[in-house]
Amino acid sequence: MKRRSFIKKTTAAGIAASLPVGLIGYSDNVREKARIALIGAGLRGCSHLRNLLLRTDIEITAICDINQSRIDIAQEMIVKAGYKKADVYTGSDLAYLDLLTRKDVDGVIIATPWLWHTRMAVDTMKAGKYAGVEVSAATTLEECWDLVNTYEETGVPVMILENVCYRRDIMAVLNMVRQGMFGEILHGRCGYQHDLRQVLFNDGKTNHGPGVEFGKKALYEARWRAEFSLKRNADVYPTHGLGPVATMMNINRGNRFISLSSFATKARGLHEYIVNHPAGGQSHPNAKIEWKLGDIITTTIATSNKETIIVTHDCNSPRPYSLGFRIQGTKGLAEFDMHTRRIYIEGVSPQGHVWEEMDSCLEKYDHPLWKKYSDLATGSGHGGMDFFVIHAFIEIVKRKEQAPLDVYDAAAWSAVTPLSEMSIAGGGELQLFPDFTRGRWINRRPVFALIDDY
Amino acid sequence: MKRRSFIKKTTAAGIAASLPVGLIGYSDNVREKARIALIGAGLRGCSHLRNLLLRTDIEITAICDINQSRIDIAQEMIVKAGYKKADVYTGSDLAYLDLLTRKDVDGVIIATPWLWHTRMAVDTMKAGKYAGVEVSAATTLEECWDLVNTYEETGVPVMILENVCYRRDIMAVLNMVRQGMFGEILHGRCGYQHDLRQVLFNDGKTNHGPGVEFGKKALYEARWRAEFSLKRNADVYPTHGLGPVATMMNINRGNRFISLSSFATKARGLHEYIVNHPAGGQSHPNAKIEWKLGDIITTTIATSNKETIIVTHDCNSPRPYSLGFRIQGTKGLAEFDMHTRRIYIEGVSPQGHVWEEMDSCLEKYDHPLWKKYSDLATGSGHGGMDFFVIHAFIEIVKRKEQAPLDVYDAAAWSAVTPLSEMSIAGGGELQLFPDFTRGRWINRRPVFALIDDY
Repeated sequence: MKRRSFIKKTTAAGIAASLPVGLIGYSDNVREKARIALIGAGLRGCSHLRNLLLRTDIEITAICDINQSRIDIAQEMIVKAGYKKADVYTGSDLAYLDLLTRKDVDGVIIATPWLWHTRMAVDTMKAGKYAGVEVSAATTLEECWDLVNTYEETGVPVMILENVCYRRDIMAVLNMVRQGMFGEILHGRCGYQHDLRQVLFNDGKTNHGPGVEFGKKALYEARWRAEFSLKRNADVYPTHGLGPVATMMNINRGNRFISLSSFATKARGLHEYIVNHPAGGQSHPNAKIEWKLGDIITTTIATSNKETIIVTHDCNSPRPYSLGFRIQGTKGLAEFDMHTRRIYIEGVSPQGHVWEEMDSCLEKYDHPLWKKYSDLATGSGHGGMDFFVIHAFIEIVKRKEQAPLDVYDAAAWSAVTPLSEMSIAGGGELQLFPDFTRGRWINRRPVFALIDDY
Repeated sequence: MKRRSFIKKTTAAGIAASLPVGLIGYSDNVREKARIALIGAGLRGCSHLRNLLLRTDIEITAICDINQSRIDIAQEMIVKAGYKKADVYTGSDLAYLDLLTRKDVDGVIIATPWLWHTRMAVDTMKAGKYAGVEVSAATTLEECWDLVNTYEETGVPVMILENVCYRRDIMAVLNMVRQGMFGEILHGRCGYQHDLRQVLFNDGKTNHGPGVEFGKKALYEARWRAEFSLKRNADVYPTHGLGPVATMMNINRGNRFISLSSFATKARGLHEYIVNHPAGGQSHPNAKIEWKLGDIITTTIATSNKETIIVTHDCNSPRPYSLGFRIQGTKGLAEFDMHTRRIYIEGVSPQGHVWEEMDSCLEKYDHPLWKKYSDLATGSGHGGMDFFVIHAFIEIVKRKEQAPLDVYDAAAWSAVTPLSEMSIAGGGELQLFPDFTRGRWINRRPVFALIDDY
């Protein structure tokens, strides 16, 4: 099969869905440069911008944000990198729609508050431009379907920019999984265990730390993210953990999520934070708020291949950061986070029933992508993984190829938010996953990070 | 309240259930010695016997086993310890019923295969003798109720001999929980993650290792335990993990288990073990067996106080032993097993967002029981915890007091087996716990290990 064999764009969706995604392009015309627009120039958007500007195969033709100070910061970055200023779209929440009418945009990176992800990705696809959308991609099942249906109607790829899939240890473990080191995979654990209280609140002037304000009185993520703790009792941020495990279990590619059950603890963390904060206290207006999001959300997912996955959301309590990964198969298992990395493989580990440190394994099974690009990745953000997620997006835009983390991944991973919410509302009631691939998962083949290309 | 105030035995059950269990005895007549009978003189029974024989406040008046060689071993232990031989009951599965007619037995330790636990404990209570029953106490909901109803009818205590509740690190953490170090408790994790493949099979001659036989062709636990992997898809052994977390969360004492959902992975481990074993292979008859028990069982429990607990059963795969404990509250959390012990308490741990090793905490919060008895406990089996569980049983028998781990604990913890089985059969369907206390959990108060007594 020719790597970039020509497929007419009008039939792309139908064919792409039945062929190994990522190995098929739309056209022989490879772009030398990807012309990128950025919707959302906040902290995350500018982090992506920094990585984009380190490359020589991009142009930033347009940026969009409702906040002038963020536009100024982005423009300064662009100019400092030796590029000419981007055209600016601002002034209203819907200014991005004008940006999408431009002819000189091949791909759009969407790094906005969560409630904008799906609609912007949908509009981007409809405009015929590659959409790179930050996590989560969707917050309701309807939005998950919007992504899928728009992709299938337009044939334009959307990539979920799940950076943790590209973490060096994750990719080494993926490599080990694919080489059969763990045997047949049985079980995974993952999640987002990250004390975000200083992210959810600030004083409206300074990020990260001072103040107990959120919403319109706050800046940055506190301006919109705390609302999800206020209004929703769900795993509101499932993909950092689930994405990596999904790639290891070939979800949507010979396997799929079947069902889940979710449980929430009581909600105490944010109230206690406000009450105990120097800027807060019992008499602070926010001390009266009842937060809906349980402090710890536990979700168990069953797959069609009869694996199970535990996904944790734990962001409103004091705790060290930990994604809490485990991957376990018939021959052994690995457990790792920033602080502990241990592995046991029967017949390989030097001593029976005794853990090994993972360091030598991580080195030995270092993924080809990391071997090739570690120099470029180093310092790119979040331990280097941010380089790879942008690299992959730029490469598919240039080559007009399918996304390695595609619309079905975006939908299935993000669906954990609404499904966990319904399960929790039913006290742990079982929920079934929609099959976003419409049955095609049975013959879709794995594409993520197969080689050292992107 | 007088510690040993007299309460008529006939009303004991009704009153005991409404009063702080463990602080009330039946009588002022404290026995100087506990006259103990042992039903089951296998590996576990003889381990208890060894701890009993180190004491000066016991007599072993009778032993029961269907296996003459185990009786011989037990008698030799008894004689070597300077006691006279015990009377023997053997010859049939029901020989223990004759033992229970003896007048010179105050308490009975039941260390038999799981299917005998409940019926022997019930018969023991009916005979007016304290029952110390090994874990799990029951394998069906009907058996859980049998224990509860018999206790309430007879007023005779049954204690579940859950040794892990007495592990030194567990008790130090319990101490920390009670002192509020973790704040309000939110979440626990626990389980039984222990590669038992060499326990589930042997060659009928030697324990632990050779052979892939089970049932009648095997010895020791392989003779009966493997049947549970063959026939039941459930967390068949939940109490080692759940008991300690239950004591920390005051289950049945101001709190209770409300519901659970369980998921099973596919079953691969035992088949692979048989096929790859030198004594097995593809052509071995046991290679054809379809094992019902999923290799990894994940259960999430919700409590009435809105905590959640993840319980894992993982015994049929290669892996290092780990109970995988976590206890987490509004102020911090501890995660510990044999290999990793880490803790983080906001404002106490020296560095924000960074784990501490637990060693100094475990020393600082060493439980009063361990401080008092560590010399005696050392070497008693399973790191010393076996001393304490026997110590507690003997003390309640001597003092005629209620059990610190009582019939409601035995029922609620053991109920996870049938409830998880039903949930798994329904693909993760939510199951509700019976309230074995018949509503009395709302005013029952914690009694486990409150002081340095037992």
